[in-house]
Amino acid sequence: MGPHGPYTATHRMSTSPASANDPPFTWTVRVYYEDTDTGGIVYYANYLKYFERARTEWLRAAGFEQQRLLEEFGLQFVVVHVACDYRQPARLDDLIDIDLRIARAARASIVFEQTARRGGTILATASVKAACVDSKRLVPMAMPPAMAAAFHTLPGISTPQ
Amino acid sequence: MGPHGPYTATHRMSTSPASANDPPFTWTVRVYYEDTDTGGIVYYANYLKYFERARTEWLRAAGFEQQRLLEEFGLQFVVVHVACDYRQPARLDDLIDIDLRIARAARASIVFEQTARRGGTILATASVKAACVDSKRLVPMAMPPAMAAAFHTLPGISTPQ
Amino acid sequence: MGPHGPYTATHRMSTSPASANDPPFTWTVRVYYEDTDTGGIVYYANYLKYFERARTEWLRAAGFEQQRLLEEFGLQFVVVHVACDYRQPARLDDLIDIDLRIARAARASIVFEQTARRGGTILATASVKAACVDSKRLVPMAMPPAMAAAFHTLPGISTPQ
Amino acid sequence: MGPHGPYTATHRMSTSPASANDPPFTWTVRVYYEDTDTGGIVYYANYLKYFERARTEWLRAAGFEQQRLLEEFGLQFVVVHVACDYRQPARLDDLIDIDLRIARAARASIVFEQTARRGGTILATASVKAACVDSKRLVPMAMPPAMAAAFHTLPGISTPQ
Repeated sequence: MGPHGPYTATHRMSTSPASANDPPFTWTVRVYYEDTDTGGIVYYANYLKYFERARTEWLRAAGFEQQRLLEEFGLQFVVVHVACDYRQPARLDDLIDIDLRIARAARASIVFEQTARRGGTILATASVKAACVDSKRLVPMAMPPAMAAAFHTLPGISTPQ
Repeated sequence: MGPHGPYTATHRMSTSPASANDPPFTWTVRVYYEDTDTGGIVYYANYLKYFERARTEWLRAAGFEQQRLLEEFGLQFVVVHVACDYRQPARLDDLIDIDLRIARAARASIVFEQTARRGGTILATASVKAACVDSKRLVPMAMPPAMAAAFHTLPGISTPQ
Repeated sequence: MGPHGPYTATHRMSTSPASANDPPFTWTVRVYYEDTDTGGIVYYANYLKYFERARTEWLRAAGFEQQRLLEEFGLQFVVVHVACDYRQPARLDDLIDIDLRIARAARASIVFEQTARRGGTILATASVKAACVDSKRLVPMAMPPAMAAAFHTLPGISTPQ
Repeated sequence: MGPHGPYTATHRMSTSPASANDPPFTWTVRVYYEDTDTGGIVYYANYLKYFERARTEWLRAAGFEQQRLLEEFGLQFVVVHVACDYRQPARLDDLIDIDLRIARAARASIVFEQTARRGGTILATASVKAACVDSKRLVPMAMPPAMAAAFHTLPGISTPQ
């Protein structure tokens, strides 16, 4: 990977995080029995599944399927930090919008701001830092330039000025 | 619930199971990281989640959300038998069609024939018997007449002759 | 692998399945919030997780950790058939004994009979056929002779006459 | 519940959080296929299941089973905040110790500091705030005095001076 591609792109990425006014990327999930627990609400760990589905669909919208990333690039995203606030419970049959914005992007990591909401009711908010790693050795690996560039075509990240 | 409603409806249901030529009800699911295991394929128990999502969406298409069934009717479906054959593995990012047909329906139970396929490739087939139970005591409970009637408006079950 | 080892061993295995009187191999699991659903009971797919944990511990008791099987032998067990009857529900905090017996063993597959019970109450019974496959190509692969031999030292399988 | 019981107890609790030198409460979990993903490591959401199992066992060690809390007290703990750092991956067959310490306890909430480690290798650390709520209305509810008192008999929380 040449130094001029990704460096430039990710530099721009890191200087133009999405602001709260930018339209987010949104993915909708449905709550099924599998997601709930005996307390009658969605089990807390399962929001992390919802958040990951939205990140996966955001990557897919940018043209990057993760199975292909594994096979062609030997690349994988691993979550290195999550902070999640649970505000309101979700229940069976709820339809939940997962909003995604990029708070910060660097050569080998992205910080996502994600919100789970049922209509206008915010259920949970999370900050998730994912690192791009070599899938064999699990050590940091710069994202391919095409990937960083493609991110800018999606909702959820500001267009560089 | 009067004896003439559901009895009649379920009698008709039980005499006209779907044949293999009837169009099935189909629900499409995506394979995410959460569904896979270290063997590189979808973990075997997770097909049961996919099958349940399709049954839930079939019920929803008939006008019955399960949270409402719990709250209004005190009614819940519980699986009493599953037989599943796993034929081909599914992998991350696969888009899987879950077909559903009704093999048999009675007053308080339904037998579903379900298939998971990726395009024309059959991944797994299952027979699932779900019993309608009183959600407090978990004892058999006849389905509401409106439910049995509504089933006949959906793909996946034959129209009675 | 020489033809005389595993063939002999698996031949003996296939002619001496465990009878209902043999002591089973038993592994105990606890029901946590993660296992339950909004119906107040253990979600039906999660029994398949319990059954797998017991099979894994049975293999471990025979000296075979599956991570090592993957790395050293390129070998993996995949489930090709499950039939499960759900008889009584399990609830949060229940302590469940998972019994395992070998119904049939061949060169490249094993059929397990498994029971989930809470004390003397049978909750679910299952028949599970697992195939031994090459982990890269997922095609059938004979079990190593040492594995077949080791199985005979464990509860859950009869000693050959 | 009289004002003098829990107030006093929780006051003491809130003034004597565990220090890093106190012995933690530890619960050991095993990594099974169900916990891993196609990246070959434990899926990030599943650490939250491990952390919850340890909290549940800590509560049980104090004499409080959660099914009983639901039925007798109409009480339930819900997680309102999680922050988790993932440091090293865990893999199939790993045996993981989950350490638990109380960082802060109040009338209706507890903050747990939890660590997942494989021997001396720290895999993940988390701070988890659980709120005690009325299980019907999901509004805050003071913990029973006996519960707050019992906590002091366990590892993971300092004895008040």
